[in-house]
Amino acid sequence: MVNAEHRSSGKVYLVGAGPGDPELLTVKGRRALERCQVVIYDALVNPELLQYVAPEAERIFVGRPHERERLSQSEIERIMITRAREGKIVVRLKGGDPFIFGRGGEEAWALAEAGIDWEIIPGVSSGHAVPAYAGIPLTHRAYASSVAFVTGHECADKRSPVDWHRLAQAVDTIVIFMGVRNLARIVRALREGGRSSTTPIAIIEWGTYAEQRVHVGTLGTIL
Amino acid sequence: MVNAEHRSSGKVYLVGAGPGDPELLTVKGRRALERCQVVIYDALVNPELLQYVAPEAERIFVGRPHERERLSQSEIERIMITRAREGKIVVRLKGGDPFIFGRGGEEAWALAEAGIDWEIIPGVSSGHAVPAYAGIPLTHRAYASSVAFVTGHECADKRSPVDWHRLAQAVDTIVIFMGVRNLARIVRALREGGRSSTTPIAIIEWGTYAEQRVHVGTLGTIL
Repeated sequence: MVNAEHRSSGKVYLVGAGPGDPELLTVKGRRALERCQVVIYDALVNPELLQYVAPEAERIFVGRPHERERLSQSEIERIMITRAREGKIVVRLKGGDPFIFGRGGEEAWALAEAGIDWEIIPGVSSGHAVPAYAGIPLTHRAYASSVAFVTGHECADKRSPVDWHRLAQAVDTIVIFMGVRNLARIVRALREGGRSSTTPIAIIEWGTYAEQRVHVGTLGTIL
Repeated sequence: MVNAEHRSSGKVYLVGAGPGDPELLTVKGRRALERCQVVIYDALVNPELLQYVAPEAERIFVGRPHERERLSQSEIERIMITRAREGKIVVRLKGGDPFIFGRGGEEAWALAEAGIDWEIIPGVSSGHAVPAYAGIPLTHRAYASSVAFVTGHECADKRSPVDWHRLAQAVDTIVIFMGVRNLARIVRALREGGRSSTTPIAIIEWGTYAEQRVHVGTLGTIL
């Protein structure tokens, strides 16, 4: 997929910003921010991380996911490609990890197709860090040998639906990303799938931020 | 569970070292290493990370997991508790993330029961970083809305067995930790569970290290 004609000295780093606490950025991610000439970030990223970016670097805010003022996915990809072709070092900073519900795969694909040099710098995923900050291990020899990360947000253009009934019985721990809006439907499906009403559930807001709040209950009591 | 009698100014940090590449340590984890007076680490941790530890700090190597020379889990927990009671700042450095197949939950529990002040610093899990270094996104709007992390290593004392048959149909992407020894059994179970023989599979060794090697195939060809 590499097109020699489009090769330049620019490069795009897809960087995981971590779940919120700015200290959960990786050493490698921090170094990329310090070196970059362009940073492209959205509302899921803690703006404190921009402290590492040089004052002369270009900062491009691409809005809130799922809201109208957001740049479209193809516009974001176009900006990355354009800046890299100008020979720039570009950081695309994404909340959590870029390859777990971050559309990093789509962005990497677009870069590869355009012949742009790219590299991923994985981040701490909110999927395990947020429960950790609440003192909840996802696995345990005695209680959980498997954990699934599942999206609870059904996009209009979604082509790979979640089978909550099957999930209910197949894995020990289930971490649901962006699940609050569909909570009632998800809880019902897990119960119908055979998950006990005594299964503990935690709902965590503002995970790893100072504002973190944890609500606990069971599948039988949470609604 | 806090016992006032045992309270001291010591503290234990359960720190995720990341999957191997030393730059995938978090900024917060690095700061803990720089500040600690005792570091307890095993063979899953890249020893390059010890560069951040002060020369005068005590370094305790607790061996290789699942091998005979390893200190037992209870011995490791006893050392953490003893050092913390001496008022020391202790880092328990664990490969990947401590709460994903790292026994971090057991160690946190032991510390809490002993009345020791503790904190978790999540790490980049090998579960997503290793595939990312191989260019493999775990989720994608069009192909995968769920991913499961599953242990492929069945300990003798395991009390929560993995149901590979159910997993085969319930989740889109499956990441198997330590699965090479049981590969044949796992592949057969996934096939019996209804997973297509054309399902792509990647086996990754020395993930995120310079030595990383990737073998790709399908469930029908990999054995």
